[in-house]
Amino acid sequence: MQWYFVAALLTILTSSQGILTTLSQTNGRYMYDYATIPFLAEVFKLVVSSVLLWRECRVSPSTRMTTEWKSVRLYPIPSVIYLIHNNVQFATLTYVDTSTYQIMGNLKIVTTGILFRLFLRRKLSNLQWMAIILLAIGTTTSQIKGCGEASCDSLFSAPIQGYMLGILSACLSASAGVYTEFLMKKDNDSLYWQNVQLYTFGAIFNMARLVVDDFRGGFENGPWWHRIFNGYSITTWMVVLNLGSTGLLVSWLMKYADNIVKVYSTSMAMLLTMVLSVYLFNFKPTLQLFLGIIICMMSLHMYFAPPNMLVDLPSTTKAAPESLKEVCVGRRTDS
Amino acid sequence: MQWYFVAALLTILTSSQGILTTLSQTNGRYMYDYATIPFLAEVFKLVVSSVLLWRECRVSPSTRMTTEWKSVRLYPIPSVIYLIHNNVQFATLTYVDTSTYQIMGNLKIVTTGILFRLFLRRKLSNLQWMAIILLAIGTTTSQIKGCGEASCDSLFSAPIQGYMLGILSACLSASAGVYTEFLMKKDNDSLYWQNVQLYTFGAIFNMARLVVDDFRGGFENGPWWHRIFNGYSITTWMVVLNLGSTGLLVSWLMKYADNIVKVYSTSMAMLLTMVLSVYLFNFKPTLQLFLGIIICMMSLHMYFAPPNMLVDLPSTTKAAPESLKEVCVGRRTDS
Repeated sequence: MQWYFVAALLTILTSSQGILTTLSQTNGRYMYDYATIPFLAEVFKLVVSSVLLWRECRVSPSTRMTTEWKSVRLYPIPSVIYLIHNNVQFATLTYVDTSTYQIMGNLKIVTTGILFRLFLRRKLSNLQWMAIILLAIGTTTSQIKGCGEASCDSLFSAPIQGYMLGILSACLSASAGVYTEFLMKKDNDSLYWQNVQLYTFGAIFNMARLVVDDFRGGFENGPWWHRIFNGYSITTWMVVLNLGSTGLLVSWLMKYADNIVKVYSTSMAMLLTMVLSVYLFNFKPTLQLFLGIIICMMSLHMYFAPPNMLVDLPSTTKAAPESLKEVCVGRRTDS
Repeated sequence: MQWYFVAALLTILTSSQGILTTLSQTNGRYMYDYATIPFLAEVFKLVVSSVLLWRECRVSPSTRMTTEWKSVRLYPIPSVIYLIHNNVQFATLTYVDTSTYQIMGNLKIVTTGILFRLFLRRKLSNLQWMAIILLAIGTTTSQIKGCGEASCDSLFSAPIQGYMLGILSACLSASAGVYTEFLMKKDNDSLYWQNVQLYTFGAIFNMARLVVDDFRGGFENGPWWHRIFNGYSITTWMVVLNLGSTGLLVSWLMKYADNIVKVYSTSMAMLLTMVLSVYLFNFKPTLQLFLGIIICMMSLHMYFAPPNMLVDLPSTTKAAPESLKEVCVGRRTDS
């Protein structure tokens, strides 16, 4: 399977996630407990990965599975980072409004690039760095508040703590991604075995969250396992399956492609969602959306196109055969 | 003189042009006839160029000056194009509002690139094309109407004629620039002699405009030479001198650099004016201005940086000495 096929699929599914989530609301609110969605998605991913692992083991008995504690203990770490991230997110929103928060979210594109370079030691060309920054600028441009929007709070008017927490949030989000890539690539273990470990801990952490919510709410609506499917419609189930599927695709990309590919997929998905919203929810198309899309497309081309497609190669390269001859002739005469 | 020094100077002067023009107003309106400004600027450029030409002829009697009608008759053409352009501009504004007109003005960056390629046959790399489009996107981004602005007309709601005229306007503006570059570079004539021809026709056409205005106005305020300096302040004179100086710099760039350099200078000037307006006229800094500046800076770097600074050169180039050895050794053994 080619990585760009998986990346394109991830873009489509991530984009449908936003649309489906909006469609799953009744009169603008959720009739179900939204916290149950990620838990069920983790369970779905765990079941799928277990089945695939079982099949793989049957087909090839040499399937690689490292079961040492030294390795297994690394798998809860992404879940821990996401847990911290969720709390930082919550804290950030006490300082800044949601649209400023959304704008700051684009920072994670750049922090992913930085951590990708620092921790995975992947070298990026100058042009690729520019492409990454442009991607963040493109997504930000598409989110510029339009003329005539209700709330006009300036992006630059939040307290400094809000921005610091926003940056921290972007770093946490990026480090979870970069760490997962490290996990998936550090050995030749079967992808499915790695997934089983990842999602087992994911399911546990998400379940813990439901329990904590129960304690916080004083079991007003009963324990989570009593009310887990309350208010679920067919669309809600599609949200679960969709979220689970995107998770599986992300795992695949982390092992066989990288974080930057994932960042491009999800950024393009955001733009796709906005375009689809114009048709589905009668959103007004804006100049900033149009500009943002062009910027992101250019960034995509700059990052992934082979260099010789982008620049005219220096004459030395093209002239190589000629100069080669001369040097060879020269050498021959010398000898 | 280095072209980037002249380009930087042009940026500063073009930017001051906007500021000075605003400062030359009294209570938000012009106390003088604005049409006199370009006429006097042409006269200023003509005087300066004549003096410089006279000095040049004294120093080196071999100063090249083609005086054949075949050559001289080409010099009024830029003035003719500008005349048509002004009328198209006027027609466009009957269909679209000024902010849409301003946004469409960025199209001339792209049309200049296209005509530059087609008529001057200058080859641009894929990346340079992207840089030119990004420059246009960057300047457009900085002009996105902010949240809470008075008029909320959508950019996409003008009649089709408005857009067609906007595109025509961008083509005319670009062709005047490209044609001037062709004129300046077609022979080795002295720059000052070329300027004298260009500005003589420029002065004549601008004077004709003043006369036409007089006829249109029924000589209500007397003929133009009676009222030419009416309402002039020291700032108005600075506007004239500034406009004249930018014209001289543009001529220099057309001969010794090119249209793309000029387009970058004037685009950067537009952004500089917006930044200065934040300080001078208490404009509110916007997210779109900030994003636009970053996009244009990246575009600048993409266009002018040497390719080997942007991309990692393909391994063939770097490995050349190695592979060279092998091939040579191979050949030697063969022979």
